[in-house]
Amino acid sequence: MLLTDPANIFYFTGFRGSAGVAYVEGPEAVLWVDPRYTLQAREQARGIEVVEVRTGLIRFAGRWLRRGGRQRVGYEDGHLSCRDFLQLRQEAGKTVTWVAEGKIGRALRAVKDEEEIQTIRRACAITSKVYEEVLPRVRPGVKELDVAAEIEYRMKREGAEAPAFETIVASGSRTALPHARPSSKLLENGDLVILDLGAILCGYASDLTRTLYLGRPERRIRRLFQAVQAAQLKAIQGAEPGVEARRVDMCARRVLAERHLDKFFTHSTGHGVGIEIHEDPRIAKLERTKLRAGHVITVEPGVYLEGVGGVRIEDTLLVTPRGQEILTGASKDSWILE
Amino acid sequence: MLLTDPANIFYFTGFRGSAGVAYVEGPEAVLWVDPRYTLQAREQARGIEVVEVRTGLIRFAGRWLRRGGRQRVGYEDGHLSCRDFLQLRQEAGKTVTWVAEGKIGRALRAVKDEEEIQTIRRACAITSKVYEEVLPRVRPGVKELDVAAEIEYRMKREGAEAPAFETIVASGSRTALPHARPSSKLLENGDLVILDLGAILCGYASDLTRTLYLGRPERRIRRLFQAVQAAQLKAIQGAEPGVEARRVDMCARRVLAERHLDKFFTHSTGHGVGIEIHEDPRIAKLERTKLRAGHVITVEPGVYLEGVGGVRIEDTLLVTPRGQEILTGASKDSWILE
Repeated sequence: MLLTDPANIFYFTGFRGSAGVAYVEGPEAVLWVDPRYTLQAREQARGIEVVEVRTGLIRFAGRWLRRGGRQRVGYEDGHLSCRDFLQLRQEAGKTVTWVAEGKIGRALRAVKDEEEIQTIRRACAITSKVYEEVLPRVRPGVKELDVAAEIEYRMKREGAEAPAFETIVASGSRTALPHARPSSKLLENGDLVILDLGAILCGYASDLTRTLYLGRPERRIRRLFQAVQAAQLKAIQGAEPGVEARRVDMCARRVLAERHLDKFFTHSTGHGVGIEIHEDPRIAKLERTKLRAGHVITVEPGVYLEGVGGVRIEDTLLVTPRGQEILTGASKDSWILE
Repeated sequence: MLLTDPANIFYFTGFRGSAGVAYVEGPEAVLWVDPRYTLQAREQARGIEVVEVRTGLIRFAGRWLRRGGRQRVGYEDGHLSCRDFLQLRQEAGKTVTWVAEGKIGRALRAVKDEEEIQTIRRACAITSKVYEEVLPRVRPGVKELDVAAEIEYRMKREGAEAPAFETIVASGSRTALPHARPSSKLLENGDLVILDLGAILCGYASDLTRTLYLGRPERRIRRLFQAVQAAQLKAIQGAEPGVEARRVDMCARRVLAERHLDKFFTHSTGHGVGIEIHEDPRIAKLERTKLRAGHVITVEPGVYLEGVGGVRIEDTLLVTPRGQEILTGASKDSWILE
């Protein structure tokens, strides 16, 4: 199996650079990197042969396969670009039969081992801690961007390598954008505020969202919040080994439907979390994958009303043999900041 | 032309979400996004038809092309994965002839217009300012990670959306890793320190590297520094319209060769900078592209001695009709922090 996706290369070799190609055959692996990454690869990919390549990595890999007389080689069809695949096929020659196996890496990565779970647990703990620490700064007159800067700064000080994604701090009607970038808008009294943050620690991600309100919310805002909170709780409780992922999605969707809010829930209920922020299993309408102990997923229903605002509540959880454990323990109840 | 690369989609439509597919034909464009991005796309992609798609974007695009009876369609073969291309071809049917045009977007983006230059100029100014501000914190006893956190925090406070890449703060023998991640290592007296930072502002990147020394450097460190500084200056002076990019690379390489250091210069001299941190033109040994006014490039020779350390000095520059202008004005001379 030839690996080109950095997330899979990290999973199989430990190497975390952005440019490398690896070949894995049973317990054997070889990692090709360009000279910028030679030392780093030797440090990180312990017990694996590291070869420095000064020509193109794809070309080199193709020629190596040809010389080695490989006959069936798997490749990551969901990652490898058409152009790279063309070059690879040309260099490897006609004796190689290519097998599209883009899903193997993702499938293996979906169920986490004990060490991975410990790392994600720590990434989630950092994220929850930073959220709690930054809460006093969420007040009228502060810029969205400054809250985001503060969050990312504190995560880094806690040992995170980077944010797992661009931290979302959205306020007022901007909360109706599920993926709003923080702007220079000032937080105001009467604003809903969505904080969506995650940290990468030792290569593993975490994901947490809370929605706050500045001031005294009117009844329809309270109802919106309570609906999403109830939907999230229901979906969390539904996440157990043996349950199809779509059932978990349905739990959240049904609670919102009872309140006629389901049509404003415009995304999936969640996703796996690991080396990448979005991994398998997806917690989505049509996803029949059964949850297993060791899956780490988010549960994050949200409701978005254009012109009014949005509410989203998200936790990262671990599916355990008997149910689930919430890894992002930050408080959800004190959402009204008067 | 069908666009799937987010950088090209941003260039042609203004939309900055991570999931979207666009089709551009002459002055007409249509942008398909999933429901998470509908509002954002309508805000950002002014004057362009935005269509919300609840099934897969690739599938939808394929069917749309089939219905519209398109016959020749360009696609980004360097970005589109094998799997997506297969699905696209199936959905679009046999009447569509696919033309691999992955380089068009990159080629167009390489030469920046006035507005883009102004944005990059601001991104570079922020980066230089933050570098100067953070210098007093670069002292023995401080963690690499904390310097990196400080840099990213300040860039964000200055209005940057995100770091253009994971900020590099490497010290001591870790400077021999060109892409070192900041670690919890403390800066020590007698350390070389490499800071490599960049900001994204309104979607455009900047890139700046400086190398510092804590204490009084011995002669061989001074020589190393002076060699890289001389190489960088020579390459900057060589960057003019009409000059092949490989000549600029050669300028730097030759200065280092005179001092027998060229074999420790293990990467290219530079790269284009714009929407992506690595764009065309590459400033590399074999690159025959001629520089043109409006190209924005980095010049960043470096020398890396395993077990000793490394020195890299980098600026972002604009190729002008008569020569070049350095956009990252941060001081290079006060590199010894005693």
